[in-house]
Amino acid sequence: MGVPRWPRKNDAESIRARQEALGLDGEVTRVDLEPFSRAQEMLTGVAVIPVSVVGPLDIDLGRYELREPDGAVVETGRGREDVFVPLAHTEGGLSASLYRGARAVAESGGFRTIVLADRITRASCFVCGSAEDSLTLARWLEGELGTMRTWLEEQDDPSLSRFARLREVKTHVVGPMCHVLWRWTTGDAVGANMMTRNSYVLNMGFVMERSPVRPERAILEANMGGDKKPSFEYFQGGHGKTVIAEATLSEEAVRRVLRTSVDDLLELAWAGTHGAVASGMQSVAFTPASAIAAIFAATGQDLGMVGTSSMAHGTLPYARTWLELLGCRGPGKVYRFAQIVAAATLALEISASAAMATAGSAEFFRAHHERGGLR
Amino acid sequence: MGVPRWPRKNDAESIRARQEALGLDGEVTRVDLEPFSRAQEMLTGVAVIPVSVVGPLDIDLGRYELREPDGAVVETGRGREDVFVPLAHTEGGLSASLYRGARAVAESGGFRTIVLADRITRASCFVCGSAEDSLTLARWLEGELGTMRTWLEEQDDPSLSRFARLREVKTHVVGPMCHVLWRWTTGDAVGANMMTRNSYVLNMGFVMERSPVRPERAILEANMGGDKKPSFEYFQGGHGKTVIAEATLSEEAVRRVLRTSVDDLLELAWAGTHGAVASGMQSVAFTPASAIAAIFAATGQDLGMVGTSSMAHGTLPYARTWLELLGCRGPGKVYRFAQIVAAATLALEISASAAMATAGSAEFFRAHHERGGLR
Amino acid sequence: MGVPRWPRKNDAESIRARQEALGLDGEVTRVDLEPFSRAQEMLTGVAVIPVSVVGPLDIDLGRYELREPDGAVVETGRGREDVFVPLAHTEGGLSASLYRGARAVAESGGFRTIVLADRITRASCFVCGSAEDSLTLARWLEGELGTMRTWLEEQDDPSLSRFARLREVKTHVVGPMCHVLWRWTTGDAVGANMMTRNSYVLNMGFVMERSPVRPERAILEANMGGDKKPSFEYFQGGHGKTVIAEATLSEEAVRRVLRTSVDDLLELAWAGTHGAVASGMQSVAFTPASAIAAIFAATGQDLGMVGTSSMAHGTLPYARTWLELLGCRGPGKVYRFAQIVAAATLALEISASAAMATAGSAEFFRAHHERGGLR
Amino acid sequence: MGVPRWPRKNDAESIRARQEALGLDGEVTRVDLEPFSRAQEMLTGVAVIPVSVVGPLDIDLGRYELREPDGAVVETGRGREDVFVPLAHTEGGLSASLYRGARAVAESGGFRTIVLADRITRASCFVCGSAEDSLTLARWLEGELGTMRTWLEEQDDPSLSRFARLREVKTHVVGPMCHVLWRWTTGDAVGANMMTRNSYVLNMGFVMERSPVRPERAILEANMGGDKKPSFEYFQGGHGKTVIAEATLSEEAVRRVLRTSVDDLLELAWAGTHGAVASGMQSVAFTPASAIAAIFAATGQDLGMVGTSSMAHGTLPYARTWLELLGCRGPGKVYRFAQIVAAATLALEISASAAMATAGSAEFFRAHHERGGLR
Repeated sequence: MGVPRWPRKNDAESIRARQEALGLDGEVTRVDLEPFSRAQEMLTGVAVIPVSVVGPLDIDLGRYELREPDGAVVETGRGREDVFVPLAHTEGGLSASLYRGARAVAESGGFRTIVLADRITRASCFVCGSAEDSLTLARWLEGELGTMRTWLEEQDDPSLSRFARLREVKTHVVGPMCHVLWRWTTGDAVGANMMTRNSYVLNMGFVMERSPVRPERAILEANMGGDKKPSFEYFQGGHGKTVIAEATLSEEAVRRVLRTSVDDLLELAWAGTHGAVASGMQSVAFTPASAIAAIFAATGQDLGMVGTSSMAHGTLPYARTWLELLGCRGPGKVYRFAQIVAAATLALEISASAAMATAGSAEFFRAHHERGGLR
Repeated sequence: MGVPRWPRKNDAESIRARQEALGLDGEVTRVDLEPFSRAQEMLTGVAVIPVSVVGPLDIDLGRYELREPDGAVVETGRGREDVFVPLAHTEGGLSASLYRGARAVAESGGFRTIVLADRITRASCFVCGSAEDSLTLARWLEGELGTMRTWLEEQDDPSLSRFARLREVKTHVVGPMCHVLWRWTTGDAVGANMMTRNSYVLNMGFVMERSPVRPERAILEANMGGDKKPSFEYFQGGHGKTVIAEATLSEEAVRRVLRTSVDDLLELAWAGTHGAVASGMQSVAFTPASAIAAIFAATGQDLGMVGTSSMAHGTLPYARTWLELLGCRGPGKVYRFAQIVAAATLALEISASAAMATAGSAEFFRAHHERGGLR
Repeated sequence: MGVPRWPRKNDAESIRARQEALGLDGEVTRVDLEPFSRAQEMLTGVAVIPVSVVGPLDIDLGRYELREPDGAVVETGRGREDVFVPLAHTEGGLSASLYRGARAVAESGGFRTIVLADRITRASCFVCGSAEDSLTLARWLEGELGTMRTWLEEQDDPSLSRFARLREVKTHVVGPMCHVLWRWTTGDAVGANMMTRNSYVLNMGFVMERSPVRPERAILEANMGGDKKPSFEYFQGGHGKTVIAEATLSEEAVRRVLRTSVDDLLELAWAGTHGAVASGMQSVAFTPASAIAAIFAATGQDLGMVGTSSMAHGTLPYARTWLELLGCRGPGKVYRFAQIVAAATLALEISASAAMATAGSAEFFRAHHERGGLR
Repeated sequence: MGVPRWPRKNDAESIRARQEALGLDGEVTRVDLEPFSRAQEMLTGVAVIPVSVVGPLDIDLGRYELREPDGAVVETGRGREDVFVPLAHTEGGLSASLYRGARAVAESGGFRTIVLADRITRASCFVCGSAEDSLTLARWLEGELGTMRTWLEEQDDPSLSRFARLREVKTHVVGPMCHVLWRWTTGDAVGANMMTRNSYVLNMGFVMERSPVRPERAILEANMGGDKKPSFEYFQGGHGKTVIAEATLSEEAVRRVLRTSVDDLLELAWAGTHGAVASGMQSVAFTPASAIAAIFAATGQDLGMVGTSSMAHGTLPYARTWLELLGCRGPGKVYRFAQIVAAATLALEISASAAMATAGSAEFFRAHHERGGLR
C-alpha cells in the first residue's frame, strides 16, 4: 500500500526532519529535546503549561512501608508539614479556589492523610472450553499464589520487572471465560508496563503451561478492572495508592474564609449526593479531576491516569523541579506524593462546594448582580 | 488566625517574590511567563512536556454548523484530509502504538468522523418545601424554555455570556428536590464558566423570582450530570461535542500491520465487553484517556475534562502552534478539533486492542521470550 | 431427536393428564382451574400464598388522566382516604413492620402520592451498514413521530393494540447500531405484550419499508432500557407509572411509634446512601421489593416486574377480590393502584429504616439481650 | 392520637374479625388459614396463582457440600436428570417459551449446572470519630475473624442462629464510616433473619465492646451490598447461591426448535450487550426475573428476593408439593433447587432471545402479518 512511513527515531537528525516536514520552527522547537529522547517515540517539540504554586497546605502526613509478603501498607510514623503545591493548568480561578480551600482547612487544624492500600491490577482473561473448565482453572489459580510468586522470582527473563510483586489473585468466572485480576505492587513507579510484562510471562509461561485444564486462549487485558477508566471494581478495590484525606472545618472558617454556612454545605451534600445517584455517577465527588490533572501535569505523571498516582519520570527536566518542591524527588516518595495529591484535591473540593452552596443565596446574587455580574 | 497569606497577583514582581520564597531558580523559571499571566492566579513557573507528532491520519472530516434556535448540529459538507497529531506525554510506546493504528486504518480506507451533538450542561437544583411544589416547579420550567431564552437575551448583566445559548431544560424530581439540567451550546469554547454564569443568573434572576412556587434554596451545581466525572447521564446525553469515529479494517491490515487476526479481535471484544460489565465500567473502551490526554496537553485544553473537547486557549503560546498544526487555530474550528481527537483515539484503541489480543498467542510469546522477553 | 413432547393445552383432559403423569393429587389440584385456563399454557395446579391485610394507610391520593396527544399525566383532583392493603407473602415481621410505618405516618399527617409520568418502553435496534446510515436513520425517526402515530392508527392489522399509543421516540447511535426506544402508554394494562406487538409492526411495516437508508436488520428488543431489569435508563425515565409517595414524620411519631430518633434516622440516611454508592446500587432504597412483591402477588400482577405497576388480570379469581379491597377493580384504576403501592412501600421503608437505626443503640441491645435475644 | 389499632394476632377469632371488618367473604377466605398462621402477622385470606408445569429439563446436576471452616462449596458428585418445573404466573406465552428453550437444549445435549459459591451478607456500618479510627477498626476486624467465629459459637444467646456461620469479613472505609460486610452461610434457609440476628449480636456484643477504638454508633444494615436490590457488589460477589447454568446449542436445534439462526443470535448478543451498557443495566441478561419469579411463587420463596434462592417454607401447604415435584423438599436440597432455577431461567433466556432475534426478519413478519398479525 502506498502509505508513506513516518520515522519514529529520536536522534537529532530525525527530530529535525520531522520539524521541517511539518514546517515547525518557533517556540515549540526551541527547547532542548535531548533529555526527553527516551520518553516517547517521534519526538518533535514541546508543550509548555504555566504553573502556579499554591500553599501552604498544612498536612499531617503519614510514612509508610510495604509488609512482606502480603503487601499490606503499614504506617511507620507521621509528621505535620507545610507543603506548597505546583499546579499546571490554564483555568482561571482554579488556583485561587484551591488556595481558599487550603486556608479554610489550615485555620481549622489542617489536613490529615492516610494511605490505605497499594495495588495495581492487570485484568487478564483465559477463554476455556466450558464453564466447568473455567471454574477448575479459577479454583486452581486461587491456590497457586505462593507458587506463582516463587516462580516469578526464579525466572531469568529480562523482560520481567523485579519491582512488580504479585500480591493477590482474584478470579471471576463468566461461562467459559475465566477473568483473572493479577494484583501487584510496583515500588516507586505506577508500574503499568512492569505489571503488564510480568502478567504476560505469568499467563504464558506458568498458567498456559501448568493449568489442570488447557485454556483455548489467554487475553492479556480483558477490561475487568478498568485501567485508565473509572469502574466499581477500582472504586472499591483501588488502582494505585488508595488514600484518605480528612479535614474538620471550624464554623468560623466556613463563614469567614469559605463565605458560606454549615447548613448550606449540608444541603448541598444531600442534594449533590442524590444528584450523583440520579445521574449514574460512580462517585459523589465534585471536581477532583481538576486538581489531580494540574499536579500530574506539573510533575510529569501519566495524564491518562488522573486518579492514579505515578512517579515515573523523576529524572526528566521541569518535572523534577516540581517534584523537588513537593519533597517527592528520588526513591521512596510515592506515598508522600499520593497524600499531597489527596490533600490538594480535598482543598479544591471544599472551596468549589462552598462556591456552589453560597451561589444560591439571594444576598450573594444581589451583591454580585449589583456590582456588575459575577466575576 | 496566624496563617500567612500567599499572594495571587501575576505582575513580574509578585511572580519573582514567589519564585524566591520557594527557592526556584532554574529551568522552570526561565521561560517568559508574561503571556500566561491572565490564564491563572499565583503563576510561578512552567511545566514542559515533550510532544511527538504522529501521522498522517487519513480522515474524512465533516463540516458542521448549529441550527437556530434548537441547536441541532447540521452537516454542511465533508472532505478527506491527512492530519498530523501532536501528543504531549512521556509514556513509552504510546506514540508508536497510535501510529500503528493510524497506519492500519489508512491502509483500510481511512477514518470517517461525524459530530452527533453539541451540548454542555450545568445541573442546578431547587430545594422546595414538598414533592408537590418540586413537581409544580419542574412542569413550569419545562414550559418556559422560549421565555427563558428571550429573557437571557434581553438582560444587560455584563457577567452573562452571549456565546452560551440555552437549548434545552430537563428536570428530575427527587422528593422536594427539583434537579434542573440546563443544556447549552457555547460557541468555540468548552464554555464551563460561561454556562455557569448564565445558569446562575437564570436561577436567581428568573426562576427564584418568577416560579409559581417559592423554592427554599437554589444550588448552582448539584452533581446530576457529572461535570468532569463520568456518568450515565453524559454517556448517553453527551457533555461537549459528541463524535463518532469509524473505520473498517481490512483483513490484510489486521494481519500485516496489527499482527493479529479478526478472530482474535472478536474474541477480545467479547471477553473485554463482559469484563467491562463485570467490573462496573461505564464504557467498553480500552484506553481512550491516553490519546485524549496527550492531545489536550499539547493544545492547551482542560486536562480535568479528558473527554470533552475545548478550544479555550488558542491565543496562548505553544498551544497555538500545535492547534495550527491541526488546522484548528482561530474561530469556528471546534468541530474539526473534536473529530480529530476522536479519530486519533480510535487509532490508539485499535492498536492497543491488537496488542492485547495478539499477546495471548503462543507464537507471540515464544518469539519474544526467546529473544529475551517483551520489549 | 427422541425428546417426548409435553402437551400445552388447557382443556380438562389435558390438565388431568399432566397431573397424572406427575403424580399430583392433593391440595394443589383441588382448586378449580377453569378460570385460569387462558392465563398461561400447561396449567397443572395452583400455588396458594397467605395474605395479610394491613391498614389503614391514610393517603392523599391524586386522580389523573392522560393528555392527548403527548401523553402527559394531568392531575384532575385529589382526595384523602383510608386504605387497607393486601400482602401475599410468608416473611415473618413484614406485615407488622409495614403496619408500624403506616401508623407512624398516620400520626404525622398521612401520605401524599403523586403520579409523575406514564410510559413503557420497547427498546428496538436497527443494525445499519455504517455509523453514517445509523445516524441518518436516527434523525429521520425523530422527525416521523406524528406520521408514525397516524400510520399506526390507520393500520388494519388485528395484532395491533388500540390501547398502546406511541408517545415519544428516543434514539441512540452506537456505530452502525441505531437503538430506538419506542415509548408508549398502554391504558389500564402494564402492556408489555401490547407494545411489543405494536413496536414490531412499526419496525417491520413502517421503518424497514420507508427508512431513507436500508437497515440490514431489525431487532425487536435489544436491551437498551432493561425490561424487568433495573437500569439507569428507567431509574430516570421510568418504566410504567412513575409515582412519588411523601410523608413528613413528627418527632413524636418517630420516638413513640418507630422507637428511634430523628438523629438516628439522619445518620442512617447518610451512611446508607454512601453504602449504596460504594456497593454500586442503582438506588438508595432499603427494601422496597418486599412490599411491592407482596401486593403484586396478592393482586395478580406480573411478579417479574416488581417495580412496574400492572393491572393485567382484574378478572381472575382471588386477585379480583384483593383489587376490590383496594378500590382498584375495573377500568381506570391504574393510577390509584400505583399510588397505593408507592405509599405502602414507603411505609415499609420507614419502619425498616427505623429498625436498622435503632438496633445499633446500646439500650436497644441490652433490652433485647437481657430478655433473651432479639425476637 | 386517634388512629385505631388493627390487631395482628392469627387466632381464628382475630382472623374472622379482620375478614368481617373488611367485608371479605368468598373465595379468598374459603381456604383453611391455620397452616399459615405462623408465616406472617394479620393473616386474613389467600392469594391463588395458577401453576403450569413445564418439562422435562434435561440437567446435569452437581451435588455439593460446604467445606469447614472456610465455607467453600465443594462438588461431591454429579448426575443427569429430567426435571419438571412448576411456574406460578399469569403471563401468556411464558410457559410455552420456557418449554421451547428447554426442548432446544434437550435436543442439543442438555443443561449443565455448577454451584460456584454460597454467601449471604449483612452490611453493617460503624460510625467512628475520624477516618483514622475507622481504619483502625477495619484493620482490627479483618484480623479477628477466627476469634469472632469462636465467640459466636460460645454465646448462649437464644436469639443466635446456629445455622448462620460467619465465613468472611470485608471492610470499606469511607471517612469516619467503617462499613463491614459480614458474610455468612445459612444452611438450608436463605437466612436473612438468621444473619441479621447474628450480625446484631456480633456488632453490639463483640465489636462495640472490644474494638480498640470506640465507634460512636453501630448501624445494623447500611446498604453496602444491596439486600433485595441489585448492586455491583452482589453481581460480582453473589448474595445467596451463585450458580452457572450452561448449554451448547446445536445448529439444528437453533433452526428447527428456536426457528432462528446462529448468526441472528450473535447479532442480537452484540446489539443487546451494547444496549445494556448504554442503558446502564447491571447485567446483560434478557428476562431472567420472569422465570425466577414464577418458580419462587410456586415454591413459597421470598418474592422480594427474585435472584436469591431460598428454602424457607418447605413445610407450608401447596409450596411443599411443588418442592416435592422438584425433588427439593426436606433438608439438604438447597443447591439442587438453585441449580434447577438457573437451568429454567436459561431455558427462558434462550427462547426469548430467539424470539427477539427472529422477529426482525422479513420472512417472520410476512408470515405473521399475512396470517393476521402476531399472536
